[in-house]
Amino acid sequence: MNEFELIARLSRGLPTNPAVVTGSGDDCAVLDFGLPEKLFLFKTDALVEGIHFTRGMAPEKIGHKALARCLSDIAAMAGMPDAALVTLGLPENFDPALIEKIYNGLNALARKYQVAVVGGEITANPGHIFMSVAVLGTVPRGKQVLRSGARPGDAIFVTGDLGGSILEKHLEFEPRIAEAQWLARHFPIHAMADLSDGLAGDLRHILQSSGVGAEILKTALPVSRAAKLHAKKSPGKSPVIAALTDGEDFELLFTVAGGDAVRLLDAWKKQFPKLKLSCIGKIVAAAGLVIRDQAGPHKLDAHGYLHFA
Amino acid sequence: MNEFELIARLSRGLPTNPAVVTGSGDDCAVLDFGLPEKLFLFKTDALVEGIHFTRGMAPEKIGHKALARCLSDIAAMAGMPDAALVTLGLPENFDPALIEKIYNGLNALARKYQVAVVGGEITANPGHIFMSVAVLGTVPRGKQVLRSGARPGDAIFVTGDLGGSILEKHLEFEPRIAEAQWLARHFPIHAMADLSDGLAGDLRHILQSSGVGAEILKTALPVSRAAKLHAKKSPGKSPVIAALTDGEDFELLFTVAGGDAVRLLDAWKKQFPKLKLSCIGKIVAAAGLVIRDQAGPHKLDAHGYLHFA
Repeated sequence: MNEFELIARLSRGLPTNPAVVTGSGDDCAVLDFGLPEKLFLFKTDALVEGIHFTRGMAPEKIGHKALARCLSDIAAMAGMPDAALVTLGLPENFDPALIEKIYNGLNALARKYQVAVVGGEITANPGHIFMSVAVLGTVPRGKQVLRSGARPGDAIFVTGDLGGSILEKHLEFEPRIAEAQWLARHFPIHAMADLSDGLAGDLRHILQSSGVGAEILKTALPVSRAAKLHAKKSPGKSPVIAALTDGEDFELLFTVAGGDAVRLLDAWKKQFPKLKLSCIGKIVAAAGLVIRDQAGPHKLDAHGYLHFA
Repeated sequence: MNEFELIARLSRGLPTNPAVVTGSGDDCAVLDFGLPEKLFLFKTDALVEGIHFTRGMAPEKIGHKALARCLSDIAAMAGMPDAALVTLGLPENFDPALIEKIYNGLNALARKYQVAVVGGEITANPGHIFMSVAVLGTVPRGKQVLRSGARPGDAIFVTGDLGGSILEKHLEFEPRIAEAQWLARHFPIHAMADLSDGLAGDLRHILQSSGVGAEILKTALPVSRAAKLHAKKSPGKSPVIAALTDGEDFELLFTVAGGDAVRLLDAWKKQFPKLKLSCIGKIVAAAGLVIRDQAGPHKLDAHGYLHFA
């Protein structure tokens, strides 16, 4: 049983109450506490030494990443973050200076987005550092963007370049809060997610939640320089596969009606001239994810290879 | 540098914003999002295998404890819990059945208090289980009870029996939500905290936050049967010292004006006939914690011994 199967099993029959608008299964939970103009967003995300970072990395960047992951999820709902709690599990002989540097990185990002760090906990954790951040945010009532709203005919967009994040970007990425705010204010965004599990994985979450399929144009994928570098070191892995399957891009993946696509691309270039926006394909009615190139349609298998469909 | 010194150092200059009513340093953070009648409570708490539980313990109780610890903090602010997120770090060869049982215990407690479990995360954690729960709750605006409101002349109360929780109670305790709600509705509670670090430790937090001291009557301490049992196994540790210093009692510790004390005790007996409430001493102006017996006043030293003051 893998992570996703276990989550599916645990997600059945979770306790709920009338405050829940959207429970588990999206980027954030959405809660209604009766505030006329706002709904609440609630999210937690963990960072484990040896898995999400190693002791040799700059501690400020580890703190940055711990909070930025949660902020990326808030962004993916078109929300704004308000407050954060930090849980820190520390091995026996932790270096206080290291912990302070982790906090410095986290606090710097919090200040940038006016997020209050309102406490947390420090506990022992044998062997390695475990960080967990919980974030509370808000979104204008009714303006939250879920994964479940994609419709056949939608254009699929992705910000930035994809793949090879492990080389550097996973520790330095900027949560796309400003971009998501602007998108939600100016266009009817049908579905949105942030890229944490890799484009193919996160797009599948949107497709399954929405009950649709997608066709991606291989040549339209914004393959990063890092993906090309990283692919060179991984025999059998092409840069395109890296862009499709590497995790932790933390870019925005979203869909809008096909008729809005050109207007959106034009407006984006004026608003965010430094950040690439790519239309990578379209939503279709038939379930499944198809990658198309000159040779025809391909399916991406579980091992990260493209096969003729 | 111990946990408290590190927290003090990290707590200086944390990022804040206008939503923060009370930041780190109390049982929960208190946030104001403009809801006319309510403020929000935000809390996170972690449970680490080998420290807070061991693999041999009933997994349902581990799940119960993980959520109950947070609910105890919500209770200590006189609040009600609304939603929870669960972070679960799992070793490589976790047993899915074990994880389901942990969730069953957590979910049962959530249902009892109408807490929605709205998601969370499962991640790898080499070597052992790490659980972190974040809870969002609410409190009627202005009715939150802080640690900082104790005044000289206040009577100090504690619910239940103290000490020896490690033998059983730490896995089975009931968060005192109903009791705290009733207290806050019927009496002006000056200060309140839940007992997680031991009576002496948590009372010191109240004293330091309030800028006062306390005199505890040794004979008034509600020493549990478990404290007596546990003290027998720990050479040099008396049951009274166990009641003063053992952690994880998860009872309520609070102060009211001395003039309210008798009326409160009478009303409590009618409302909660099965749960003991003890008046254990009084708040005084002079800083410090004094334990008084027939021989006179004593000070509790850092090693858990009583010395003549």
